[in-house]
Amino acid sequence: MPSPFKTAAIIGKSDAANLPQTLEQLTGALRRRGVAIHMDAATATAARSKPDATHALDKLGEGADICIVVGGDGTLLSCARRMAERKVPLVGVNLGRLGFLTDIPADNVAPAIEEVLDGEYTSESRTLLDAWVSRGGKRTFATTAMNDVVVSRGAVANMIELSVAIDGEFIYNLRADGLIVATPTGSTAYALSAGGPILHPALSAISLVPISPHTLSNRPVAIQSSAKIEITLLRGRDARANFDVQAHSVLEVDDVVTITASPHSAVILHPKAYRYFSMLRNKLHWNEENN
Amino acid sequence: MPSPFKTAAIIGKSDAANLPQTLEQLTGALRRRGVAIHMDAATATAARSKPDATHALDKLGEGADICIVVGGDGTLLSCARRMAERKVPLVGVNLGRLGFLTDIPADNVAPAIEEVLDGEYTSESRTLLDAWVSRGGKRTFATTAMNDVVVSRGAVANMIELSVAIDGEFIYNLRADGLIVATPTGSTAYALSAGGPILHPALSAISLVPISPHTLSNRPVAIQSSAKIEITLLRGRDARANFDVQAHSVLEVDDVVTITASPHSAVILHPKAYRYFSMLRNKLHWNEENN
Amino acid sequence: MPSPFKTAAIIGKSDAANLPQTLEQLTGALRRRGVAIHMDAATATAARSKPDATHALDKLGEGADICIVVGGDGTLLSCARRMAERKVPLVGVNLGRLGFLTDIPADNVAPAIEEVLDGEYTSESRTLLDAWVSRGGKRTFATTAMNDVVVSRGAVANMIELSVAIDGEFIYNLRADGLIVATPTGSTAYALSAGGPILHPALSAISLVPISPHTLSNRPVAIQSSAKIEITLLRGRDARANFDVQAHSVLEVDDVVTITASPHSAVILHPKAYRYFSMLRNKLHWNEENN
Amino acid sequence: MPSPFKTAAIIGKSDAANLPQTLEQLTGALRRRGVAIHMDAATATAARSKPDATHALDKLGEGADICIVVGGDGTLLSCARRMAERKVPLVGVNLGRLGFLTDIPADNVAPAIEEVLDGEYTSESRTLLDAWVSRGGKRTFATTAMNDVVVSRGAVANMIELSVAIDGEFIYNLRADGLIVATPTGSTAYALSAGGPILHPALSAISLVPISPHTLSNRPVAIQSSAKIEITLLRGRDARANFDVQAHSVLEVDDVVTITASPHSAVILHPKAYRYFSMLRNKLHWNEENN
Repeated sequence: MPSPFKTAAIIGKSDAANLPQTLEQLTGALRRRGVAIHMDAATATAARSKPDATHALDKLGEGADICIVVGGDGTLLSCARRMAERKVPLVGVNLGRLGFLTDIPADNVAPAIEEVLDGEYTSESRTLLDAWVSRGGKRTFATTAMNDVVVSRGAVANMIELSVAIDGEFIYNLRADGLIVATPTGSTAYALSAGGPILHPALSAISLVPISPHTLSNRPVAIQSSAKIEITLLRGRDARANFDVQAHSVLEVDDVVTITASPHSAVILHPKAYRYFSMLRNKLHWNEENN
Repeated sequence: MPSPFKTAAIIGKSDAANLPQTLEQLTGALRRRGVAIHMDAATATAARSKPDATHALDKLGEGADICIVVGGDGTLLSCARRMAERKVPLVGVNLGRLGFLTDIPADNVAPAIEEVLDGEYTSESRTLLDAWVSRGGKRTFATTAMNDVVVSRGAVANMIELSVAIDGEFIYNLRADGLIVATPTGSTAYALSAGGPILHPALSAISLVPISPHTLSNRPVAIQSSAKIEITLLRGRDARANFDVQAHSVLEVDDVVTITASPHSAVILHPKAYRYFSMLRNKLHWNEENN
Repeated sequence: MPSPFKTAAIIGKSDAANLPQTLEQLTGALRRRGVAIHMDAATATAARSKPDATHALDKLGEGADICIVVGGDGTLLSCARRMAERKVPLVGVNLGRLGFLTDIPADNVAPAIEEVLDGEYTSESRTLLDAWVSRGGKRTFATTAMNDVVVSRGAVANMIELSVAIDGEFIYNLRADGLIVATPTGSTAYALSAGGPILHPALSAISLVPISPHTLSNRPVAIQSSAKIEITLLRGRDARANFDVQAHSVLEVDDVVTITASPHSAVILHPKAYRYFSMLRNKLHWNEENN
Repeated sequence: MPSPFKTAAIIGKSDAANLPQTLEQLTGALRRRGVAIHMDAATATAARSKPDATHALDKLGEGADICIVVGGDGTLLSCARRMAERKVPLVGVNLGRLGFLTDIPADNVAPAIEEVLDGEYTSESRTLLDAWVSRGGKRTFATTAMNDVVVSRGAVANMIELSVAIDGEFIYNLRADGLIVATPTGSTAYALSAGGPILHPALSAISLVPISPHTLSNRPVAIQSSAKIEITLLRGRDARANFDVQAHSVLEVDDVVTITASPHSAVILHPKAYRYFSMLRNKLHWNEENN
């Protein structure tokens, strides 16, 4: 049976020791299914078996039917933003411990990828956030985030003060280390450490999780992902907006960070055996007896 | 302008000292708008101006276009279940401190109700939960809840063990004092005290909030309200299922409590000035300086 | 070298499958060091090698220089209260997973006990709580607890209201599922699940940990263990006072539960390699990477 | 009756609008009791009635029997470190909302201070922390803190990794935004926002409170204040050590922050009516009904 996927883009975490051998098994599986292989330059350098084409990271999504990420959750996060606009689905192969997103272990990459190439997969859509910073009414920075947008204090450990509005309605003034705006994907990352709830990926929701809030009743709130969230910096030197901990912007007082669900989603393909809560049980040690 | 509401059902908290005088102002407003007044027997007894008809609580929804609850959040909770099937919208008048649901103060009842009767209101739909207990495959108890379904330990302060499944998929075994399954309405009640997130009422979500879980990583989870949740008691003497803290059922080992969103919703009408987050700010003291 | 311990009391968890074989290795080690062996009747029944004397549980502490508990943390808790008055030190052998208190694994019992008998041990003193219930000024119940005293709601999942005083000074009225008063030993048990801090055993402190408090700022408080804590039930049907989850007392409104550090402590002997925080790291999975 | 206090040092928050009039009432009370008045230059500038002597802040403690701080908790924190070595007791007058430490309201300053000067006060001793940063075995920074020492991430919102030892024993590796080491005084400040327990001031304890820890079971721990805590930065760019949010030190990997109780304490004098828990109830809104 020919695979529904004709061309695969492969992006690897180029400094990982076991990338070359994992790539070898992966490209072997792809060639057995007759799938053309594209890579970015760094990944191609690491690969023992060279790809059919090499493209810049930004162009790799063009013409690809599937994007296979070989690394960790962080690697997948950065690819997801690139692939979302072209609707290229992602598959995550983990070179270390299994991640929340990268659920194929490196030592099982060939059979797992073949299963996916044969159409045996579960597809999952993940909300992305479009976010931008405005100063004096002009956008100074814009990006897309898959996990979270974090507005927080700078290096001085002193709280900042924020004003938060949702769809134009004032919600609260917050004095805290910061505020995390998280997607369901991000709800198991930083937001969880800060006391936020786990949001199932199928839920069209976003959580607002205060970081060490001064007012103890400032508890996490989950709202519809269609909401438009505006965060204004009222007070605080050296505050920052962070996006997936991969990009950041220095904020001045009166700067506004606006966040809203992206029209594009990231699509992740999982082997048939994947279950969201089974992955969570494993990652969060829910199944261990003597906790 | 004639009111869109022809007949109002009034249910009062009959043991409240200021019920008679509040009813007097309320019925005055209704008669000024030409609205027929129905009451249950206990409320009619407290009323100085007698209603046009008296019905049993269970029948009060028949023929009513609007149900005005005069009491507190607890009074409204018990009425909401009764009115949901007939789609009678509710208005909440609070005889004490303002509640999360009953947002019209008793001392302003006449102008606020007149505003609503004139069509000047915001309508809000609140998810209800259908829940039942099964023993040996047979339903032994069924009810509807607006806030929450709580499966918890009995009087002995010893943890119970539960198994939780969502849409037939095993989620976790939980050793805890119990588990709260809360609607957005219930998310600001018991679930909040137990560490759960606030869910905005417009979110089609349900939260699962463990009560004092043995495993510290057993954190609150929010899922789609369309899910079917099954909680099986694995271990624990004298465990209980509670529904809005108004009905309860004693559980035996292997009993299953099933919870799913009701096809009916409760509809609450608010004066135009009502804002959900404004109410929260007030109730949770978010706006106080020296907290 | 003769052991400083002449007579050992052994108390086993009589329904544990691996009790007989563990006792066999334990009694072998004791006889090799010339230590006389006393047991309670149930433990003697399980033992293949019979003891030198059999006593009722209450009398077992008389004439014993050391008490070896073979079971789990719960077994040790119940023995600690019995041994404290006679200052008999305890050693904990765990038949299952290692506990917070029982730190000698069953499969290593002989060498570990021989080490202790040779004087190679670390001695640790643990605070005990004396607690009593008063009704109309008369004591209706009194006991000693090693972990915690818990005043909590009964089977109906509705909050109770308590008034708390410390050394005669009013602290707060608490509306909650209950209040846990925990020793450092108990701080890693129920109190930890309810959000309380870990108190190092060397700290002469007691924590007051509210269970699902209505007021979100009602956070855990740690005070000196010399304090006298009085908890008065203001409201709540079917409330209970629980002591180490092993004894309990039904409370009526106006009943007072008084708690104060016992003049006696429990003394636990650990093998030399024991470190408190090392045990915690293991029990709480602090050392695991992918949490 | 002559006052036991012969000379008072007064330190004011010099940019506060109501400082001059409060100083006027304060100096009036002091002169009526025959107490000599010393001030720092900035406070003297604000005072309408000039002091008997003006000293640099660092010298103000010399020859003073009491130090009256007129400002807020932050003002008192910075004075406490200066006065501790000379054992000069502090009194706190609050120019705004009452603080956790500054409990005399500005509009009642004269009678409250007269009461204290007449010997009608409660004296409270507060633990101070000595802290220093070492790089390659050499101290690069040393200071004293009354609230807390915070080792935390810099401006980039990415977690840091710390190794924590107590009295030379390894406790844990922590991946988090940071770690707060708090005195009982600091336990109601930043540590409380980060989820730490309230430690009663009479408790000789220090709390270690992780900030947004990656491992969810990394819960707050309270230990004896006599412990020596060493925190080593294992990973993290731009990390900082902060001391009472008033001094800070940039950390490099392998830098060690050492913290131990100071041999000096801060002594605070309160009017007779002061009660610690009464102050807490007020500050944390424990006494409010509709929370």
